[in-house]
Amino acid sequence: MLVVHKYGGTSVGDLERIENVANRVAKVRDAGDDVVVVVSAMSGETNKLIGYADNFTKTPSKKAMDMLLSSGERVTAALLSIALQSKGYDAVAMSGRQAGIVTDDEHTYARIESIDPTGMHNAISEGKIVIVAGFQGVNKAGSVTTLGRGGSDLTAVALAGALKADQCEIYSDVDGIYTTDPRIEPNAKKLDTISYDEMLELSSLGAKVLQNRSVELAKKLGVKLYAKSSFSDNEGTLISEESDNMEEVLVAGVVLDKNQARVTLRGVSDRPGIAAEIFTLLAENNINVDMIIQNMGTDGSTNLGFTVPQSDHENAKKIMAAFDHDIEGMDFDNHVCKVSVVGVGMKSHSGVAATAFTTMANNNININMISTSEIKVSMVIDEKYGELAIRTLHEAYALDK
Amino acid sequence: MLVVHKYGGTSVGDLERIENVANRVAKVRDAGDDVVVVVSAMSGETNKLIGYADNFTKTPSKKAMDMLLSSGERVTAALLSIALQSKGYDAVAMSGRQAGIVTDDEHTYARIESIDPTGMHNAISEGKIVIVAGFQGVNKAGSVTTLGRGGSDLTAVALAGALKADQCEIYSDVDGIYTTDPRIEPNAKKLDTISYDEMLELSSLGAKVLQNRSVELAKKLGVKLYAKSSFSDNEGTLISEESDNMEEVLVAGVVLDKNQARVTLRGVSDRPGIAAEIFTLLAENNINVDMIIQNMGTDGSTNLGFTVPQSDHENAKKIMAAFDHDIEGMDFDNHVCKVSVVGVGMKSHSGVAATAFTTMANNNININMISTSEIKVSMVIDEKYGELAIRTLHEAYALDK
Repeated sequence: MLVVHKYGGTSVGDLERIENVANRVAKVRDAGDDVVVVVSAMSGETNKLIGYADNFTKTPSKKAMDMLLSSGERVTAALLSIALQSKGYDAVAMSGRQAGIVTDDEHTYARIESIDPTGMHNAISEGKIVIVAGFQGVNKAGSVTTLGRGGSDLTAVALAGALKADQCEIYSDVDGIYTTDPRIEPNAKKLDTISYDEMLELSSLGAKVLQNRSVELAKKLGVKLYAKSSFSDNEGTLISEESDNMEEVLVAGVVLDKNQARVTLRGVSDRPGIAAEIFTLLAENNINVDMIIQNMGTDGSTNLGFTVPQSDHENAKKIMAAFDHDIEGMDFDNHVCKVSVVGVGMKSHSGVAATAFTTMANNNININMISTSEIKVSMVIDEKYGELAIRTLHEAYALDK
Repeated sequence: MLVVHKYGGTSVGDLERIENVANRVAKVRDAGDDVVVVVSAMSGETNKLIGYADNFTKTPSKKAMDMLLSSGERVTAALLSIALQSKGYDAVAMSGRQAGIVTDDEHTYARIESIDPTGMHNAISEGKIVIVAGFQGVNKAGSVTTLGRGGSDLTAVALAGALKADQCEIYSDVDGIYTTDPRIEPNAKKLDTISYDEMLELSSLGAKVLQNRSVELAKKLGVKLYAKSSFSDNEGTLISEESDNMEEVLVAGVVLDKNQARVTLRGVSDRPGIAAEIFTLLAENNINVDMIIQNMGTDGSTNLGFTVPQSDHENAKKIMAAFDHDIEGMDFDNHVCKVSVVGVGMKSHSGVAATAFTTMANNNININMISTSEIKVSMVIDEKYGELAIRTLHEAYALDK
C-alpha cells in the first residue's frame, strides 16, 4: 500500500514533535507500506518570517514572499528526513520542485498545474521514505511559488492523486471531524465517515480542520482522505464518496458561523437586472456576499436579503446607502449568526428541514432568513441564540447517539 | 559597470543590518551601476539549523543537510529583495538554482561545474537588482547542494566570472587585508592592493578574511576582488594580478599560525619509498600535514620533519609510534607555532629571508624548521615567541610605514 501523510505546523512544532512524527512514519514503514510525507513549517516559523518582511514594508513583492516563506517547509522536510535516517530508515527530503510540482504564476496563491511524480516514484522504488516540503512548487519559469492558505493539505492531496496513493492522511491536533464544535456542545461526536460534499459544506461553514480547496481536489481526484491527530492513535474521520450506509445517517453535523451580518433591502423593484446591478456593485467593492434570499414579489416589488462577513458590514451599508433607485428602504443587522444542518441523507429523506424549524420554534428562536441546498439547511437567527440553537439541533438529530 | 557584492553573515545578522546592506546596494544602483548581490545566512541561523539536526543524529545524510542549510541564505536573499523593494528599487531574489549554478554531486562540499547566467542577465537587462542566495546550487539530478565553508564567497566570485562583472566586492566586518593581525601588532596597516598569490599564502596561513577556494577561483577567472567592510566606507583591499608597482613592495604581510605541532623523525633510512609510505599512512588516517622538511642525509639516513594541526598531534604520535622500521627515533613538540613572511617582491629581491633569520637571531629566537617558496618564508619556532616574532618582523620589513 502507498500512503501519503501530511503533518501540520503544530504536529511538527518542535524537535520532540518531529521525532514523534518520525516514529509514526517509521511504524507505517515497518508495517510494509510505502510512505510519502508532506510537512508544513514548524508552527511559528511562517509568522516569524512574515514579521521580518513586515519590518521593511507592508506590501512586499509576492515573488519575494514566496522565496521567503517556502523556506520553512524545506527546513521541516530536511529535519524529518534526518530524524528518520537516525532511526535507520532511508528517507529523502524534496522541495516542491523536486517532487515535480509545477504551478501557474500566481505568487502566494498559485494553483498546481501539473505534477511529474517520476522523482518520487524512483525514490519509492529504491525503498526510500519520501518527505516533501508542503505549500510550494515552481512556475514554468522556475521561480518558487506558494499555494496559499491550506497549501500543505493541497500538496498532500495532489501528490496522493499523482502517485495514485491508496489513501491520504491529514494530521493535525484535532482527531477528526465532529458533529459540531465540542466547545459549544460537549456531547459532539467524532464522525467515522463523511462525504466530500458534506465536508465541503461543513468546512465552508466554519469547521477549520480541512481547507475547501483540498477537499474539492480530493473529490475531483477521488483521493480517500483521512483527518487524524498526530497526538493520538484514534481512527480519525474518513472523507470519501458517499456510500450506501452513509445515507442511513440523516445529518452529519450542525455548524455555527458567528461571522455574519444581515442586509435586507425592502421594496426592491421587481424587474430584471436589479439584483445583478446590486451584487455586481458589491463584488466590485470586494464584499463577500454569503447567503442571498429573494422571494416572489407582490405589487411589483420584493424584499431582497443577503449576509456578509461582519467585517464587511459597515462597507456594505455605505455602498447600499448610495444606491439611490429601485429600493424603498433597508434594514441592517450586525447581531446575527448562521446555523446550518448538513447531511447527504437530506437528499432522500424529507422532514430534515422541518425538524430544524420545529426545534427553533420550541425554543422561541425567531428565524430571520432560510436557505437550503440538497444537503444543507441554513438559518440566520439572532446572534445570542447561536449556541442554544446548535445544542438543541444536535440533540434533535440525535447526533450524540 | 556591473558589480557583484557579497555580504557575510555578520553583515546581514539582523533586520537593521539587512536594511544597512539595502542602503549600500541602493547607493551603487543610484550611481548607475548594475548590481548582483550574494548573501549568506543571517549569523547564527546556520548554527541553529545544525543544532536541530544534531539533536537527531551526529551523522545526518549530507543530502538532507544541504536541503536544511540552504534555507538560511534563501531567507536572507528574500528579505534583502523586500528591503530594496520597500525603498522603491526593483529587486529579485534567486536561489542558487535560479541563478543557474550547477554543481557536482558532492553534497555539503560541492564544486561548481557550470553557471548559466541567462536568468540573471535577463533580470539585469530589465533594470533589476539581482539578489542571489549564496553557498548553494543544484546537481544535475536537481537536488540542492551546498558549497562548503566559504561557499558564499565562492558563489560571488563564480557569478562575477560568469557575468563578466567588472569587480567583485566581498563585505565582512573587517575592512580589508592587513600586514599582520592588528591584535598582535597594533601598527598593522591595511593594504591597498595584494596579489592573488600573496592572498593565497596569507589566507592559508591564518588570515580569515577570504577563503582560499574563492581567491583561487578569482585568480583563475581573473576576477578583480575587493575585501571591504559593510560597516564603514573605507576603500578596502584590492586583490588582483600582481602589477608593476606591487613588486616595489618587498613583503605584503607577516602571519602567525599557532595551530601547529611538530614531528621530527630521526635517522630515517635514506632509500626511496620511505617518505611516501609515511605520508600515505598519515593521509589514510586523515591527518593534515602542513610543512614537510627533509635534508640530504649522511651515512645512509636523514631527518624528516613535518607539522600537523595541534588537534591531530596525539593521533600522529600514535600512528608513528606503530611505525616500526627504517626510523631510529622521534621527537614531538606540541608547543610550536609557524611564522610566515609573504610577498611577491621576494621573487626579484634577495635578502628577504636573510632579514627574517637575522630578526629571529637578534631576539634570541631559535628556528626549528624553515620552509620557503617563491613568495613565502615560513619558520617554525617555540610557541611562546610567536607574537614577539610577528611584531619584530613587522618592524624589520617596515610594514607600518
